[in-house]
Amino acid sequence: MAERKRKIVNDPVYGFITIDHPLIFALISHPYYQRLRRIHQMALAHLVYPGAMHTRFHHSMGAYHLMSCALQELKSKGVDITAEEEVAAKMAILLHDVGHGPYSHALENGIIEGVSHEKISHWLMEELNKEMKGALTLTIEIFNGRYHKTFLHQLVSSQLDVDRMDYLNRDSFYTGVSEGVIGYDRIIKMLTVHRGELMVEEKGIYSIEKFIVARRLMYWQVYLHKTVLSAENMLVKILRRAKELALKGVSLYASPALEYFLYHKISDANFEQEPACLQQFCLLDDYDILSAIKVWAQHSDKVLALLCKWLTNRELFKCVLSNESFDMVSINTLREKVQKQYGITGKELDYFVFTGTASLSTYNDQDEKINILFKDGTVKDISSIDNALVSHTLAIPVKKFYICHPKI
Amino acid sequence: MAERKRKIVNDPVYGFITIDHPLIFALISHPYYQRLRRIHQMALAHLVYPGAMHTRFHHSMGAYHLMSCALQELKSKGVDITAEEEVAAKMAILLHDVGHGPYSHALENGIIEGVSHEKISHWLMEELNKEMKGALTLTIEIFNGRYHKTFLHQLVSSQLDVDRMDYLNRDSFYTGVSEGVIGYDRIIKMLTVHRGELMVEEKGIYSIEKFIVARRLMYWQVYLHKTVLSAENMLVKILRRAKELALKGVSLYASPALEYFLYHKISDANFEQEPACLQQFCLLDDYDILSAIKVWAQHSDKVLALLCKWLTNRELFKCVLSNESFDMVSINTLREKVQKQYGITGKELDYFVFTGTASLSTYNDQDEKINILFKDGTVKDISSIDNALVSHTLAIPVKKFYICHPKI
Amino acid sequence: MAERKRKIVNDPVYGFITIDHPLIFALISHPYYQRLRRIHQMALAHLVYPGAMHTRFHHSMGAYHLMSCALQELKSKGVDITAEEEVAAKMAILLHDVGHGPYSHALENGIIEGVSHEKISHWLMEELNKEMKGALTLTIEIFNGRYHKTFLHQLVSSQLDVDRMDYLNRDSFYTGVSEGVIGYDRIIKMLTVHRGELMVEEKGIYSIEKFIVARRLMYWQVYLHKTVLSAENMLVKILRRAKELALKGVSLYASPALEYFLYHKISDANFEQEPACLQQFCLLDDYDILSAIKVWAQHSDKVLALLCKWLTNRELFKCVLSNESFDMVSINTLREKVQKQYGITGKELDYFVFTGTASLSTYNDQDEKINILFKDGTVKDISSIDNALVSHTLAIPVKKFYICHPKI
Amino acid sequence: MAERKRKIVNDPVYGFITIDHPLIFALISHPYYQRLRRIHQMALAHLVYPGAMHTRFHHSMGAYHLMSCALQELKSKGVDITAEEEVAAKMAILLHDVGHGPYSHALENGIIEGVSHEKISHWLMEELNKEMKGALTLTIEIFNGRYHKTFLHQLVSSQLDVDRMDYLNRDSFYTGVSEGVIGYDRIIKMLTVHRGELMVEEKGIYSIEKFIVARRLMYWQVYLHKTVLSAENMLVKILRRAKELALKGVSLYASPALEYFLYHKISDANFEQEPACLQQFCLLDDYDILSAIKVWAQHSDKVLALLCKWLTNRELFKCVLSNESFDMVSINTLREKVQKQYGITGKELDYFVFTGTASLSTYNDQDEKINILFKDGTVKDISSIDNALVSHTLAIPVKKFYICHPKI
Repeated sequence: MAERKRKIVNDPVYGFITIDHPLIFALISHPYYQRLRRIHQMALAHLVYPGAMHTRFHHSMGAYHLMSCALQELKSKGVDITAEEEVAAKMAILLHDVGHGPYSHALENGIIEGVSHEKISHWLMEELNKEMKGALTLTIEIFNGRYHKTFLHQLVSSQLDVDRMDYLNRDSFYTGVSEGVIGYDRIIKMLTVHRGELMVEEKGIYSIEKFIVARRLMYWQVYLHKTVLSAENMLVKILRRAKELALKGVSLYASPALEYFLYHKISDANFEQEPACLQQFCLLDDYDILSAIKVWAQHSDKVLALLCKWLTNRELFKCVLSNESFDMVSINTLREKVQKQYGITGKELDYFVFTGTASLSTYNDQDEKINILFKDGTVKDISSIDNALVSHTLAIPVKKFYICHPKI
Repeated sequence: MAERKRKIVNDPVYGFITIDHPLIFALISHPYYQRLRRIHQMALAHLVYPGAMHTRFHHSMGAYHLMSCALQELKSKGVDITAEEEVAAKMAILLHDVGHGPYSHALENGIIEGVSHEKISHWLMEELNKEMKGALTLTIEIFNGRYHKTFLHQLVSSQLDVDRMDYLNRDSFYTGVSEGVIGYDRIIKMLTVHRGELMVEEKGIYSIEKFIVARRLMYWQVYLHKTVLSAENMLVKILRRAKELALKGVSLYASPALEYFLYHKISDANFEQEPACLQQFCLLDDYDILSAIKVWAQHSDKVLALLCKWLTNRELFKCVLSNESFDMVSINTLREKVQKQYGITGKELDYFVFTGTASLSTYNDQDEKINILFKDGTVKDISSIDNALVSHTLAIPVKKFYICHPKI
Repeated sequence: MAERKRKIVNDPVYGFITIDHPLIFALISHPYYQRLRRIHQMALAHLVYPGAMHTRFHHSMGAYHLMSCALQELKSKGVDITAEEEVAAKMAILLHDVGHGPYSHALENGIIEGVSHEKISHWLMEELNKEMKGALTLTIEIFNGRYHKTFLHQLVSSQLDVDRMDYLNRDSFYTGVSEGVIGYDRIIKMLTVHRGELMVEEKGIYSIEKFIVARRLMYWQVYLHKTVLSAENMLVKILRRAKELALKGVSLYASPALEYFLYHKISDANFEQEPACLQQFCLLDDYDILSAIKVWAQHSDKVLALLCKWLTNRELFKCVLSNESFDMVSINTLREKVQKQYGITGKELDYFVFTGTASLSTYNDQDEKINILFKDGTVKDISSIDNALVSHTLAIPVKKFYICHPKI
Repeated sequence: MAERKRKIVNDPVYGFITIDHPLIFALISHPYYQRLRRIHQMALAHLVYPGAMHTRFHHSMGAYHLMSCALQELKSKGVDITAEEEVAAKMAILLHDVGHGPYSHALENGIIEGVSHEKISHWLMEELNKEMKGALTLTIEIFNGRYHKTFLHQLVSSQLDVDRMDYLNRDSFYTGVSEGVIGYDRIIKMLTVHRGELMVEEKGIYSIEKFIVARRLMYWQVYLHKTVLSAENMLVKILRRAKELALKGVSLYASPALEYFLYHKISDANFEQEPACLQQFCLLDDYDILSAIKVWAQHSDKVLALLCKWLTNRELFKCVLSNESFDMVSINTLREKVQKQYGITGKELDYFVFTGTASLSTYNDQDEKINILFKDGTVKDISSIDNALVSHTLAIPVKKFYICHPKI
């Protein structure tokens, strides 16, 4: 760790990403971080946007790059940031997603219900900090918002953090949805710190508007696309069915790590008390899930087999979005048709016909605000500015209802 | 299949890809084609270029798009192409890689030695043609170069086919190696047909030069990058070791499809005589391989376990490239060091210290030539043109030697 | 005109633009159209954004390209468009800016007050139609909105016309203000015709929002940038001063065309009654204006000389923007300082200290609306949609006040 | 000049260019430098590539940006560069083209024959150095290659200088000839200094090959495009004819600066002895030339009038390129046809039918070489490397012949 290394990684989004600190090398080389190479950033969105195959590894490297740029810019504006804080903030962003499991949303809803990826991140960071003999202590303080220089936490986690900036850039790049592109380089040049808080200079207002609108577009057009919702709900149903069968003692093909989570009831307590739990979690990734699903497509349980076959071959549920909730009459009509066509009955119909909701605040004025610093020293939340595009109306979450069912 | 559907797919490389023919819909929806979504185009290159996660599905869709553009261009120049030929040529390019298994090179060298992906493509096309009641007959003729309109085959397979154009574009895009970008749109506008053969108009010479140089760069900088060579060789060794153990009767975690290929000796005959063989092959993809490797990292066989652990955690072999072959003395010194450090001896050392060669012709003047059509009607191979960059010298393959070994 | 020509023009924004109809060749080759090569699209904005040197020629070629794409798309959706209508619509968009003089805004405010470029376009189209023996009759009907297929006019001129789409794309590309980029290709794919009117399919809502926000950003960040306002106001003042001096009989260096417009009072009547007037107008471009200004920097009239010297050397007026109008007290203070420092007095001070306003509607709900066609057949204006970003509030024009003065 | 200013300029090629030193502000603000805003980088190439309207101002700003990046990179590799040297090298590149007149090649061949732009740059730098009280002394030493740190001069002027890198990038960007794009960012990361000389690290070989091939392509496809050659030769003929007439005493519309150069015989001596000469030169730009040409299209001299009318309306000479020189018989046939059709005779026919040559070395092994530094410390010229694309053969200049004549 003594010698001065410098490594340059090609990134199609930013050109080159530079790594030049031994602690950061150590962190990136750790199996817990390398595991993120095997977790797709956008889960099953590639079934609609075939380019969206990038990983959480690549996203967190990108966010790290933006963090480096932002810190550089702030320092050049005279903001006091020590070398130690710089490395700590960079490690905090590298680790921000470390607790995500494969198909995170599906996993949390299907196999480890009630255990959030935030908590797992927390446990993993503590574990890593032990291994690295305290080198992550400041990182963890910044991550948890307990360090006195609030702007460092805001760069890691707020409505204008480098996490969002990178995922909008990257998801837009890899899906080819060019409208999601944001002017991240201009936003970064407009960042400043005022009374310890992260702010945007007045000249940056329109870039921030653009950023908020790009995010809104990416949600409705990509993340909440009806076919993406369909695929991800099918995955939730598959994992729930598998767990249901497993807990009943039915035999299922699974890697040891997946087996662990299928055949045990899992809660926070397991992670906190049984070291094996976190160990097994770190061995679990997209490859365990998808390879099992392909095998389950031949399972004797009809519900599991059908869902797995359809997902594998991309014969996805039809999904309808609506501004209003669906009435019981039309849901029941669908259930009857599915019952007739596929011979599924009773409670098992819930695996085939189901409703859900998707919602989004374009700008959340309750969360960490995006503050604009005017030349005269005034500070205003972006949603409070005269003539702003982003008014308080946009803070009200928009909620949409959807229903899914197989081809009938 | 009656109604006229039209679907638009976002592609970050070309913007949008349009699908508008029922036969093409049917082909793309087939499980054999959907399986390509689970096979990475660039195998393990993402360990060096983290963006390179795109799939063979996406690549063949891109090549299909270029085929559509090229046929459109040729038709607008008065080349006679019937509607049937157009669909057939498009299906031929969609299917050109259908016989690739996961980590194709490694598979062919490690598990199904002696069975080429070209042959598997052939068997799969025949199978699909049966299912589709002969709809692929013309496609197969074009693919095999037996159709009288030679240029259709040349678009599918030659030194200037849409396959190469797409993979250079796409691999360069996803790796971020911007120097690999080619002027595919200009090349396509310069294509023409002369006496039934595909040609490039005189004005396109410099774009062709650029194309050849970009390909050369992509090989040495990306495909044959020493760390990529290291990772892919480790994978070959892992699969060989696994097969060796399996044939001895050692128990190995594996999906049913992978099990099939590990525990049987496989030759062309198996594919030709046992329907199960092709069926199992179509269930095999990257997910089977990588999820097994993670589990094998805990195997009691030390050779297998070490190789699998290292690959999973990206602790790759050191790989040295050289213009000359390595002498036995230096190889033996390395073997001794490895033996001492890891306690591996005898034949098993071959899994840890080994040499190989990588070679490339910048332009192969024996293969299907790239012909230039001059305004005066003359036709010349690109390597025979006065003042051309691409001289016959470049047709001589360049061969490099490499040696791999674990950290010592 | 008999032979079938096809020409491909490189365009950094769209790749290639194809010209393939003899009438369009004839129109583009005409000196009236070639003159647009000598008129910058963004006037003096290049003094702030040095890349913004593109011409009205290039912009109208780009808009022509988008028109070709849009017509192609509509035809593929079954909209009835004849070959004659297609060529006419393409010529209409090529000609949409033909009446612009050099530094259009400045010219109209400084030398030919009261004569709008719309009227000059009209006279020029009539003139060209005579020369081309009626070939532009349908073009002119479409341009003027008198043709029964309303959507053709709407493609040429509305809040979602190909003119706006190209200038946002192109100005954003050449200035490097990447946030102005719009998803023009997706918007075009979402266009449709319903009851003879141009509409956007429901799936295109977010792309339209993005388009409107990008336009808003380009206005405040580029077109109405305070330094751009300063330079363009200086140019207005220069031309007014020159005309004032000329009408008093003072001698001024000028090309014959510029001389014509400086030494005559010009109104609509001149254009309508004196053929020389339109002829001279067609000889006038940016080169006449800027080369004169450089010479006038040495003129004995102090007001003219100072303004010209400053503009030539980019010593621009300071310009302050404000949400409120400026009070007389602060204006007078500035006037006194300028009087003291530069020795300018009385009415001539108005050339050095002056105020103005800039205003913009993000979306104008009085103008040709952007209509969304829902799947159920409903049609709604974009500003009337539930949860839309673009609410009626955004239809209220925002007005800003500015004041300009020399360095003091 | 005391206060610390920092300005960011949008550049579509590199994103943002930062200016942060008072001397550099002073230099950029100087009228001699601002004048470059009125000189197009690619002369008349926009008649073929309509996007190519960028200026020498923008190009030199871009080269300055690359210089900043290169110096930053070298410093991070431990190369000793003082703050003073850094500013001096940046000013040297800003000034590298300051002596270019409008349509440089045409001017030097038509009006100020025998006076090179290099010499004018030299005189202007000396003049500026006087005004700036010696602040440019080190800049001039670096520029002239007299400073002991050779690599600084090589960054300004060699076969791999930032001038070439920027013009290839920029011309490729603005023309839309995407094949001209080079991997400038990777090349810069591969730069190093060895024994005081600029070198490229071994890993950069393929990027250098790509750079050389891109340059070759830009020459043959853009700079020496037959229609560009035609337009630029017409301009030379126009300026020669105007000078010929002027020296005979014929009256010609011209700005005072242009008049100065038309009505005087100009040699180095004039620039060196008459201060007015350099002063007038600094007032001359594209606007003087093009506005005069439009007026001359009405001149009573038939030769001048025809050439000017044609160039203004883009009715360009037909230009034919050939690998062999043209024989007298075919030249005379053309002359006779032109004589017959246009009534031009004798010596004046030379203005209408003429031949010329265009030549290019892909890599010049006599010039400042591109040296590669191998890991073992060896240094080799790029053309001497085993298996290199760029062999000594490519150092032999390729020469092409062309003939131009009006439509007949």
